[in-house]
Amino acid sequence: MLIDKRNTIFQISSILFFFGGFLCAQKLSSEEIKTAANKKFPEAVFELNSFLEIPNDGHFPDQVTANKKKCESYFSQLGFTVKTISTEGAPLLFAEKKFRKKAKTVLFYLQIDGQPVDTTKWDQPDPFEPVLKKRQNGKWETIAFERLKNEFDPDWRIFARSASDSKGPAMAFISALKILDEKRIIPQFNIKVIMDFQEEMGSPHLPKAVSENRELLDADMLFIMDGTRHVSNLPTLTFGARGIATATLKVFGPRYPLHSGQYGNFAPNPVFKMAQLLAGLKDGNGRVTLSGFYDGIALSEPEKQRLNNVPEDSDSILARIGMADTDGIGNTYQEALQYPSLNIRGLNAAWVGKEVRTIIPSEAIAEIDMRLVPESDGKRLMELLKSYVREQGYHLVDSTPTEEERKKHPKLASFTYRLGSLPFRTEMDSEIGDFLNRATNKVFGDQVVNMRTTGGSQPMSPFITTLNIPAVSIRIPNPDNNIHSPNENLRLGNFLEGIITCLAILDEPIE
Amino acid sequence: MLIDKRNTIFQISSILFFFGGFLCAQKLSSEEIKTAANKKFPEAVFELNSFLEIPNDGHFPDQVTANKKKCESYFSQLGFTVKTISTEGAPLLFAEKKFRKKAKTVLFYLQIDGQPVDTTKWDQPDPFEPVLKKRQNGKWETIAFERLKNEFDPDWRIFARSASDSKGPAMAFISALKILDEKRIIPQFNIKVIMDFQEEMGSPHLPKAVSENRELLDADMLFIMDGTRHVSNLPTLTFGARGIATATLKVFGPRYPLHSGQYGNFAPNPVFKMAQLLAGLKDGNGRVTLSGFYDGIALSEPEKQRLNNVPEDSDSILARIGMADTDGIGNTYQEALQYPSLNIRGLNAAWVGKEVRTIIPSEAIAEIDMRLVPESDGKRLMELLKSYVREQGYHLVDSTPTEEERKKHPKLASFTYRLGSLPFRTEMDSEIGDFLNRATNKVFGDQVVNMRTTGGSQPMSPFITTLNIPAVSIRIPNPDNNIHSPNENLRLGNFLEGIITCLAILDEPIE
Repeated sequence: MLIDKRNTIFQISSILFFFGGFLCAQKLSSEEIKTAANKKFPEAVFELNSFLEIPNDGHFPDQVTANKKKCESYFSQLGFTVKTISTEGAPLLFAEKKFRKKAKTVLFYLQIDGQPVDTTKWDQPDPFEPVLKKRQNGKWETIAFERLKNEFDPDWRIFARSASDSKGPAMAFISALKILDEKRIIPQFNIKVIMDFQEEMGSPHLPKAVSENRELLDADMLFIMDGTRHVSNLPTLTFGARGIATATLKVFGPRYPLHSGQYGNFAPNPVFKMAQLLAGLKDGNGRVTLSGFYDGIALSEPEKQRLNNVPEDSDSILARIGMADTDGIGNTYQEALQYPSLNIRGLNAAWVGKEVRTIIPSEAIAEIDMRLVPESDGKRLMELLKSYVREQGYHLVDSTPTEEERKKHPKLASFTYRLGSLPFRTEMDSEIGDFLNRATNKVFGDQVVNMRTTGGSQPMSPFITTLNIPAVSIRIPNPDNNIHSPNENLRLGNFLEGIITCLAILDEPIE
Repeated sequence: MLIDKRNTIFQISSILFFFGGFLCAQKLSSEEIKTAANKKFPEAVFELNSFLEIPNDGHFPDQVTANKKKCESYFSQLGFTVKTISTEGAPLLFAEKKFRKKAKTVLFYLQIDGQPVDTTKWDQPDPFEPVLKKRQNGKWETIAFERLKNEFDPDWRIFARSASDSKGPAMAFISALKILDEKRIIPQFNIKVIMDFQEEMGSPHLPKAVSENRELLDADMLFIMDGTRHVSNLPTLTFGARGIATATLKVFGPRYPLHSGQYGNFAPNPVFKMAQLLAGLKDGNGRVTLSGFYDGIALSEPEKQRLNNVPEDSDSILARIGMADTDGIGNTYQEALQYPSLNIRGLNAAWVGKEVRTIIPSEAIAEIDMRLVPESDGKRLMELLKSYVREQGYHLVDSTPTEEERKKHPKLASFTYRLGSLPFRTEMDSEIGDFLNRATNKVFGDQVVNMRTTGGSQPMSPFITTLNIPAVSIRIPNPDNNIHSPNENLRLGNFLEGIITCLAILDEPIE
């Protein structure tokens, strides 16, 4: 049956191809877009796999180089002009193609790197060897990629680091460009692409690079091909993102780990000190107790109503994440995202589990992240936290305490913070909003979710503040994709709809 | 000069050898003991190294087997009868030699296994490749073992797992036996030896084995060749040890780690819950707040005076461990050890450092140990802690929560505990106390520290409760030996004095 379908598609595309030269202003129908994406799909999965096979931790220059090379080949083959933007660290990659003289220009942002992997926590041998899985009897079971040649189930998933964050979305965009290229259909606007290889590290060199390449990157709007769909897994457009700032808090104990028998009751344990510090930071409802933390945010009733138009309910989100209750910031999930958050993303002192040993740890470390909204300033919030630690009687050192400091201060800690992406928000009621809704509604009807702010950060602020252009993020991956965690995955149905989304956008005139 | 000395020793030992048959009841002088130990020293270090080269994590049966084989050869060569005591887990090794028909019998306890190693944290490539180091300009610098052939500095140290805990002390005992054997001097009492290969795991099968081999192990007194010297690094006898109980507390968060941007402010973070639980356990002075935790302990003024005879002061201990203040349990270090302690020996949620990722952890784990004294009962204290967790509103599950439990209980945790070695205390004013002070005073004068209780636990209670014999632990290693931690080491001076101690004891009549 699939073969029959493909024959039909082949005939349709041949006709399109034939008229291509004349009919390039003729838009594809919703049906044609879907058919073309379906036809391209097995090849797109194959190409995505070979992309995912390249390890992509931005900390490692050789991994950056290998991924950059691959990206260069994708866009060169599509006739784009490709240019490396050097920075003091990892380079960025830029690609450009002018399709129509008088048309507007859209800058696409692609994130190519992924989070570091802890191979031992994955259910597959190698997070960079993609595995296709099918859910059966409550378990994910590996199946052969070969089956995609004549079978398709939207609920099958590709498991690999970056499958969803964000090589999958990048490949959906590239596949859509390939389809148009093969059909000789010209996109409705000019395209610039910027590729980031250190997004998960907070894109440390992006702001300067944007500032130094203002003209090169200039565009009418920015589409961010990163981020996860709304929890309903409906096609999602997001008009803002929270920013991020991170910090490391270390509480120092004895100079080296001590035998807990020999020193228990004598040498204070830094874990209890850390616990007391952290426990004082939030109330029983999960609200940050630092005075001024939520300053400046006041959601009006109409704003709340619009926010809560998003089709979701807390109970089903709770059921999915396996929790009985939420933190008490805002009345709904969408409202919660309009506030800054304070999270402990990692905590450690000595060893647990099989490696446990009976010692008093020499230090306790808390890795902290704050998610920021336009109303909150990362530096201000981090300084609030720093002051709090000082108010609890801590002497703060820069890195490790000196002997003199160890002798003098019963409460010793270090606190360092880094400001990452700034938050941003584009008006929903705008040209970019209207355009993207027009394009996506064509293929998905009214099933498109518009979100004011997404929780995750994106390094968009340099574009928005320096280039002064509106930005929207186009969301493709399934929300339960284990983003940033072991067993990251991309649902096949989402990847397919991602290609459809990109095709619809590329084929839609902006004006 | 050393060669001259050795010639002298050789002459002395030849004379002793000649008269051996006649003079076996003639005790060695303090000088003779020291000379003999000095002469044996280079060979003893060589032998200790080859012992340390055998990895000895009790979790691994092949490592247990390799160490047991080595121990068998040591004692067989000394003419002991050697016997394996099988258990449901790792075996124990027993060795026995009757020297004098009417003499008393002493059971020596040797710990052969070591704590697990985290190789990455050591300053040498392999914790099982002993390295000799010299402290120079505030740094430990590796020097060749060869130098011991004609040089000796008591402050040089052997770095290796188990150097001090407790293959070093075991080898001091074996070396002393070898010296006597070579000199054909007969020890003053009959000897039994029990070797434990899972002490660091809490000797899980020892109690049953002792109970089943009561006659075999029966003796007049027990000498424990384990534990670190008093902080003054003077020769130390310890008449009691704290017991231990361990627990694992897990606080559950979302089913899997969540992106902190997508879920921050919505999904409660288990780290804050854990922090609140732990923060409530101790007051600002480090005293456990659980009502009843310190019940039953009342130190009389004379007891306190005797305890505080031990030559030490808090300030110098604090300076050594690099802290400005102590916990507030008891007024001195010795007093602190007379109370049970509650320690967090390990704490973890998600990742820190280079592996950090921006997630809400799915669980927070605290590894807990309690050190127990004869007045405190491990089960009672652990149940106090368990009740405390429940009183904070937690629903406790056995291992992982079911879906139903996740749905129902906002506060979900698991708490499991294991009772380890029981505490013990032998009267100082006793036959065993008098004997050991007589033997050690002979070689060290009044420089011998007698301690009522040491902080660390030892699996002695099965011997004491089942065999009903008094026990004292004979302490050899330097207190700053990094016991249980990376860079464990044994000071050469301590190893030498360890051989002297064992010689003096073996050559001293009990009555």
